[in-house]
Amino acid sequence: MKTVMWENNKVVMIDQNKLPNELEYVTMSSVHDVANGIKEMKVRGAPAIGVTAALGLALAAYNSKATARHEFIKDLEKAAEIITGTRPTAVNLFWAAEIILTEANSVKGTLEEAREAIIKKALNMVEEDVQINRKIGEFGANLIEDGDTIGTVCNAGWLATAGEYGTALSPIKVAHEQGKKVNVIAMETRPKLQGARLTAFELMNDGIPVKVIVDGALGHCMSKGMVDKFICGADRIIVKSGGHVANKIGTYMASVLADKHKIPFYVAAPSSTFDFDKDLSELIIEERSKSEVGVINGKWIIPKGANVFNPAFDVTPPNLVKAFITEEGVISPPFREQLKILRC
Amino acid sequence: MKTVMWENNKVVMIDQNKLPNELEYVTMSSVHDVANGIKEMKVRGAPAIGVTAALGLALAAYNSKATARHEFIKDLEKAAEIITGTRPTAVNLFWAAEIILTEANSVKGTLEEAREAIIKKALNMVEEDVQINRKIGEFGANLIEDGDTIGTVCNAGWLATAGEYGTALSPIKVAHEQGKKVNVIAMETRPKLQGARLTAFELMNDGIPVKVIVDGALGHCMSKGMVDKFICGADRIIVKSGGHVANKIGTYMASVLADKHKIPFYVAAPSSTFDFDKDLSELIIEERSKSEVGVINGKWIIPKGANVFNPAFDVTPPNLVKAFITEEGVISPPFREQLKILRC
Repeated sequence: MKTVMWENNKVVMIDQNKLPNELEYVTMSSVHDVANGIKEMKVRGAPAIGVTAALGLALAAYNSKATARHEFIKDLEKAAEIITGTRPTAVNLFWAAEIILTEANSVKGTLEEAREAIIKKALNMVEEDVQINRKIGEFGANLIEDGDTIGTVCNAGWLATAGEYGTALSPIKVAHEQGKKVNVIAMETRPKLQGARLTAFELMNDGIPVKVIVDGALGHCMSKGMVDKFICGADRIIVKSGGHVANKIGTYMASVLADKHKIPFYVAAPSSTFDFDKDLSELIIEERSKSEVGVINGKWIIPKGANVFNPAFDVTPPNLVKAFITEEGVISPPFREQLKILRC
Repeated sequence: MKTVMWENNKVVMIDQNKLPNELEYVTMSSVHDVANGIKEMKVRGAPAIGVTAALGLALAAYNSKATARHEFIKDLEKAAEIITGTRPTAVNLFWAAEIILTEANSVKGTLEEAREAIIKKALNMVEEDVQINRKIGEFGANLIEDGDTIGTVCNAGWLATAGEYGTALSPIKVAHEQGKKVNVIAMETRPKLQGARLTAFELMNDGIPVKVIVDGALGHCMSKGMVDKFICGADRIIVKSGGHVANKIGTYMASVLADKHKIPFYVAAPSSTFDFDKDLSELIIEERSKSEVGVINGKWIIPKGANVFNPAFDVTPPNLVKAFITEEGVISPPFREQLKILRC
């Protein structure tokens, strides 16, 4: 299944906020629509919002009323600013914007040809994402033994990517295809419950046994020997610092608990998630609204006027990561040295 | 404020499932009503369900149609069985049942006098609980410095006791009364969100600044230096094993994170919570329903047919506990030796 598509010169995506109760596709006809869709987390997951950003920029190219190349580029740069401003922690937005703007600046021919080249580039990025994630799955499946139970946080499945496999769930799916028995313990992942809503939905569709737990139960499950390995995705990995992982809030906690119980903790991510430029100190942790925590299914669960602290991400230090699973292979420490292979 | 009361020979309690949106009192006229109230967590928190159990048995004494003492005792024993079967992890239920049954067996005089003695005993237990918790607060407040931010899980405030102070929140309230500046970070505590609903409600009423976080954000907050100390309550503390703490799911995770970040982790509990009889291996961890995790505000958040693992409690080993705060004083390691003072 596909998370996001290009149809009749519009962007069509699953509204993931309505899953698992409703599978509803929404159509977006401007880059503003797409940016709002990313902000409201209709689409989420690092690779998915990366390719969605690319499609959003394709939409900006398609809609541009520019008559000269420099105006066209200006329109695209404006669009890129709108898109990258939606979720500051996700490196894939910037990655997508850079690729599309590079294409816009380098492509030859008429304005119409440039427009088409950009749309084609974005569609290629969608296709490539699926292939990359399949490779992550193949490398990662080697780490999974028959009978393993894998813990995971948030949703890093096909819904978090362009489609099909996902990142953290890809090794699990490939191992399952290979005939290994794999079970999953999915942290529900408050506040937005992507584990309960999306990961459970995906794995059930794939026939992979999954149990949902509240986030606070992970330590208990690990202490009882119920988790053999933990695999999560990532929103940005800072290479300069040796591989600090920005991922969904709760990931750091999971890594500390895994370390305590000697459970291997893996991060599965395509090379587009690795940030070779920024220092750790430049990493922005997005803080989201109070109502995202305080309102569930339309009703407040906190008293009126209560304060909430709602960081969307946390940072797992590289010493708690056993290995990174990428489309180029499984990368083990020393990360500062080994991660260089991702920079082509 | 009082959590549970004896009024016109009935038990009246706040329906805590409706907080913070509605403050509704429910009236219970039989021990079965009271048992259901405990099971459905209308009343929750170890000391609160202890005194509620005592009042439930007082109700059984009041309602008994027995005409002979041995029938009366039999009625009470049946009632005790019903009450203690509701939440197997909570030692306070058994504590309350033992006290009431001992009273029933030892009291002299007519059946009518026995009935009255039991009701009086239960009411005394309610009163004593408030005094005990005030003492916990006084001892615990000495551990809190001006400007501290205290992390806590679930609700161990007045709503978790007979009223007024609570256990884990009592040191915070007493420190606040003493003029110290204290802030609280409250884990929302899925699945039933007692932190978000009840702890925030209580502390806001007391004028103590509180921030609600999702449970998965605790590690992030600790890593950012936002938490100076952590205080939680307990449902049962196994003394024979040196002080293993059964408490709300998520507590163990908090203790591991506190240890990782060198944050003192305290358990505040009255001596009635300490179990001197059972071995750790005999500790039963209550598992609750799938819908408790899967349904929030009347709507399913997991796919139809998804599996859920919902342990209500976890176990924190004594090596992760800095000290126990009790009505007899602050008890530091070696616990096996020091906890003996609680057995009078």
